[in-house]
Amino acid sequence: MDAIEQAKRLAAYTAVDNHVLPEHRVIGIGSGSTVPYVVERIVQQGPAVNKGRVFIPTGFQSKQLIVDAGLGLGDVDQYPTIDVTLDGADEVDHQLNCVKGGGACHLREKVLAEAATTFILVADHRKNVEYLGTNFTQGVPIEVVPFAYAKVLQNLHHILGSPKATLRMAVKKAGPVVSDNGNFVIDAPFERDMMIDPYTIMAQIKMLTGVVEVGLFCKMAKAAYFGNADGSVTVRWKDGQVNQILAEEAPGN
Amino acid sequence: MDAIEQAKRLAAYTAVDNHVLPEHRVIGIGSGSTVPYVVERIVQQGPAVNKGRVFIPTGFQSKQLIVDAGLGLGDVDQYPTIDVTLDGADEVDHQLNCVKGGGACHLREKVLAEAATTFILVADHRKNVEYLGTNFTQGVPIEVVPFAYAKVLQNLHHILGSPKATLRMAVKKAGPVVSDNGNFVIDAPFERDMMIDPYTIMAQIKMLTGVVEVGLFCKMAKAAYFGNADGSVTVRWKDGQVNQILAEEAPGN
Repeated sequence: MDAIEQAKRLAAYTAVDNHVLPEHRVIGIGSGSTVPYVVERIVQQGPAVNKGRVFIPTGFQSKQLIVDAGLGLGDVDQYPTIDVTLDGADEVDHQLNCVKGGGACHLREKVLAEAATTFILVADHRKNVEYLGTNFTQGVPIEVVPFAYAKVLQNLHHILGSPKATLRMAVKKAGPVVSDNGNFVIDAPFERDMMIDPYTIMAQIKMLTGVVEVGLFCKMAKAAYFGNADGSVTVRWKDGQVNQILAEEAPGN
Repeated sequence: MDAIEQAKRLAAYTAVDNHVLPEHRVIGIGSGSTVPYVVERIVQQGPAVNKGRVFIPTGFQSKQLIVDAGLGLGDVDQYPTIDVTLDGADEVDHQLNCVKGGGACHLREKVLAEAATTFILVADHRKNVEYLGTNFTQGVPIEVVPFAYAKVLQNLHHILGSPKATLRMAVKKAGPVVSDNGNFVIDAPFERDMMIDPYTIMAQIKMLTGVVEVGLFCKMAKAAYFGNADGSVTVRWKDGQVNQILAEEAPGN
C-alpha cells in the first residue's frame, strides 16, 4: 500500500473509532477515495453492532460500497436525522471550510452533512491547507441545471473577474459530465484571497439562477482527520483546537 | 371568448405593441395561459419582420407555440442576450415582484427574464394585487432536486413556522410533478405579512440545500400589463408609475 493510501486509511480508521459509536443507528457514508476505508473500518466493528444500523449513501459509489459490504441500505427520506456522516474532501482549511465535488456528488453530500448530528471529514495530509485553493486548483465545483449553464458561466466570469470557470467535460462519455441528479458541473477557480471568506463566495454563487449547489461546505464539520505520511494523524476541531495522534497510537498501523 | 380570456388577450396585445419593436431580433417567450396571445400578436406583425428573428422558449409549451406559429426557434446558449422577454405571472404586486411557477417552468423563465434587456409581464386583472398571496394562495413554487425534497420540506416548515408546504402531485402521472428539468416542485404558502418583503424570503429559500429555484421574481420586470374586465389595460411600471389605457385605445377590442 502506498503512502497516500496508508494516510487515507489512517484518517478513516481513526475517525470511525472516535465517532461511529455502538449506539449509532443511522450513518451517512460520503463519496471519494477515503470513504472505502471508512466502510472497511465500520465492517470491522462486527456484524452484531452493524445488524441494527442503516447506512445512507451520497451517491452511486457509496451505495455500492454499502451493498458490497453487506450493510443495511437506507434513504434520507426515511431517516431525515443521521447520527453521524463521514465524508472525504478535496481540501479543508483551518476553519473547517472545505471544497467538495471533485466527484460531482456535493449536493447529496451536503444534504447528508446537514442531516447529521455529527459531520466528520476524513482525508490525507495533502488536503490540510491554510486557505482553500492551495493544492486543489481546479476550482470550486458548482452543480448547474443544463438549461442555465451558459448564463451561469457568464455570471461566474463577472464574479471571478476573468473567464476561468469551465464546464467539466466527461471521460468515456461525449460532452459534459452529468451528475447523479442529471445536472452539469462547472469548475470555478478563485484567487486565494477570495477564499479567506468562503461563505460569502458560496452564497453569491448559490444565489445565481440555475445553480443547484456549490461545493463549498462552510464550518459544517465537527472535526477533520488528516492521515500523515509518517503514520500520525492530525485532527482539527471546529473550535480551532488541533490534536496530533502519534503513529504508534493510530489504528491500523 | 369569455371575459378572462379577453383580458389576457388585451394585456398581451398591448404589451407586444409597446415592447416588441421591429428592430428586436431575439425574443424570449414565457409560459402560461396568456402567452399564446403574445405569440398570436407577434405573428400579426407579419412575416417580413419575423423572418430575421429568433424566439427562445421557457419550456415545452412555449416551444410548441413557437414551432406551431412557424417562427424561428433559438437557444439561450446561442443567444445569451435577449432583446425582450414577455411572460405571464401567477400574481404581481405593486413593486412588480411576482409569483411564477404554477406551470413549474420558473427556472427557465427566470433565466430568460435575467437574460433580457427588457422583461415584461402580461396577465389578467386577477393577478394585479397589493401583496403576493392575495388570490394565488397555493403558495410559492419551489423547484427542488428529488434527492433533497424531504429535507427541503423540513427546512421550509421551520421558515414558515408550520407544516404547510407540500410536494406538488401530478395529474395523469403517479407520484409528484416532474419539471422540464427533471426536478420536483414544492408549493409553500406564506402569510401575507411575510410577502411585504418577498426578496428576503426568496433568498432564504434559494439558500436551502437542494433548492434549484424559487418562483419569486423580485423587481425584474420593466412593466406589467393587466387586462381588465371593462376592456381597459392597467400598466404598472418599475418606477411605481401606473397608466390606464382606455378600452377604445386598447388593441384587439
